[in-house]
Amino acid sequence: MKALGFIEVSGVVAAVDALDVMCKSSDVEFVTWERKLGGRMVTVIVTGTVSAVTEAIECAKRNAQAPIMAFNVIPNPHEETQRMVQLSASRMTGKR
Amino acid sequence: MKALGFIEVSGVVAAVDALDVMCKSSDVEFVTWERKLGGRMVTVIVTGTVSAVTEAIECAKRNAQAPIMAFNVIPNPHEETQRMVQLSASRMTGKR
Amino acid sequence: MKALGFIEVSGVVAAVDALDVMCKSSDVEFVTWERKLGGRMVTVIVTGTVSAVTEAIECAKRNAQAPIMAFNVIPNPHEETQRMVQLSASRMTGKR
Amino acid sequence: MKALGFIEVSGVVAAVDALDVMCKSSDVEFVTWERKLGGRMVTVIVTGTVSAVTEAIECAKRNAQAPIMAFNVIPNPHEETQRMVQLSASRMTGKR
Amino acid sequence: MKALGFIEVSGVVAAVDALDVMCKSSDVEFVTWERKLGGRMVTVIVTGTVSAVTEAIECAKRNAQAPIMAFNVIPNPHEETQRMVQLSASRMTGKR
Amino acid sequence: MKALGFIEVSGVVAAVDALDVMCKSSDVEFVTWERKLGGRMVTVIVTGTVSAVTEAIECAKRNAQAPIMAFNVIPNPHEETQRMVQLSASRMTGKR
Repeated sequence: MKALGFIEVSGVVAAVDALDVMCKSSDVEFVTWERKLGGRMVTVIVTGTVSAVTEAIECAKRNAQAPIMAFNVIPNPHEETQRMVQLSASRMTGKR
Repeated sequence: MKALGFIEVSGVVAAVDALDVMCKSSDVEFVTWERKLGGRMVTVIVTGTVSAVTEAIECAKRNAQAPIMAFNVIPNPHEETQRMVQLSASRMTGKR
Repeated sequence: MKALGFIEVSGVVAAVDALDVMCKSSDVEFVTWERKLGGRMVTVIVTGTVSAVTEAIECAKRNAQAPIMAFNVIPNPHEETQRMVQLSASRMTGKR
Repeated sequence: MKALGFIEVSGVVAAVDALDVMCKSSDVEFVTWERKLGGRMVTVIVTGTVSAVTEAIECAKRNAQAPIMAFNVIPNPHEETQRMVQLSASRMTGKR
Repeated sequence: MKALGFIEVSGVVAAVDALDVMCKSSDVEFVTWERKLGGRMVTVIVTGTVSAVTEAIECAKRNAQAPIMAFNVIPNPHEETQRMVQLSASRMTGKR
Repeated sequence: MKALGFIEVSGVVAAVDALDVMCKSSDVEFVTWERKLGGRMVTVIVTGTVSAVTEAIECAKRNAQAPIMAFNVIPNPHEETQRMVQLSASRMTGKR
């Protein structure tokens, strides 16, 4: 089962930059992003092995343009958690 | 009839983390989440037996990454209340 | 003609709780809710006889988890008012 | 040509109340409302003769539950102005 | 090639009023408006000859109900700029 | 592979102005803009060669009407990064 990695940064410029850092440093894939909350926080969600996701977030913390305000790794997400994240992703792409 | 459980946390990272804690600690299912309000609060709604929902929320309060800002258990939701929650869920999944 | 009842509370958890209190205390039906405004206020709209709607709001003020920030009863809503509320409801359910 | 009347009030409860006061006091019709802006302001737009629209707004200022924060009467709206308002109305009803 | 004119005002009432002033004072057409940003600012975009657009904005500054908070005239918009504005307009009308 | 350039400015008027400056000063194309975050920040994304994108952003910093609050150039965006940006663009145009 794949792990999920989450980071929160301030603004779209910082979010795209952090995703680029994560994907270049480690074998993770982009899942979805959430931007609807008040304030400027953007949540970027990636997936991969636990070690890849952990490494990606560490690299984002070291090398991304803007500070990582919050982060989390869920090593073995419950199937309900996967469903919640998948709904967010499918809503963004229009695929269901 | 199934009970409904509600928690409010700050941000998407904390919301997914809290859902994962709830689903792993107790036999509850993810119903929907609401993120459209101003500010950063996210509401996560789960369903299950009264004891499962209550236990899930207690675990989230103890073990989730971020503090649970508000919560509620409705043991036997009125059918109008179920309809309100179901509308939120169906809007999210695109199913009606 | 049916009366309309309106309450405003802060947050989704409080809104669902208040609706549940209203429906259990009095013979009212859920019409729609509005959550798009800035800030955390949620408006819940119910319908029923004038006395049922009035009683429902009184119960919400006494027994709901969170304070009722604003409320109103329109005993005999003008047909244009009904149309405005109906548009909100149909937009939510996707029915027109 | 019909005049357009605009009022701004704070919150949905106040907006529906003000519309009801306007429609009961004068022969105006509901056109649309706008709620997407930040903050809690709701704009309600009505149409009718200049005198009907003026009277409706005066009544709302005297008798509505909440204060009218801003208002305007456009006696003979330019056709581009009518088009702007009509686009808002059609977007709300799904009719084009 | 047509020029583009932009004004920003606070709130929907002021935006419709300013558009009406612009269209009555000068031969400009309504293109689109943008209301999704935080805060209360509404951007109204019009098109016409450079002199018509300039005159329209000057009149709005003198005669509109509310102050014009920001404005700009782009005499000969780049085709990419036209495309950006057109996307906003088509999204509003549902035409593509 | 094409580079991506990002700028953040405050408000729609400033965003369209900055895009126009960028496209007239350098051979870049408009990709998408993001306006859903809280506050007034608008992110404009352009693409072109690294030197074209860099020159475009420099010109926007010198000549645009409003200050550039944040910017970034990603010379060789990872394919996942391109996918994230493309999803934003396709969502805006309705093309997938």
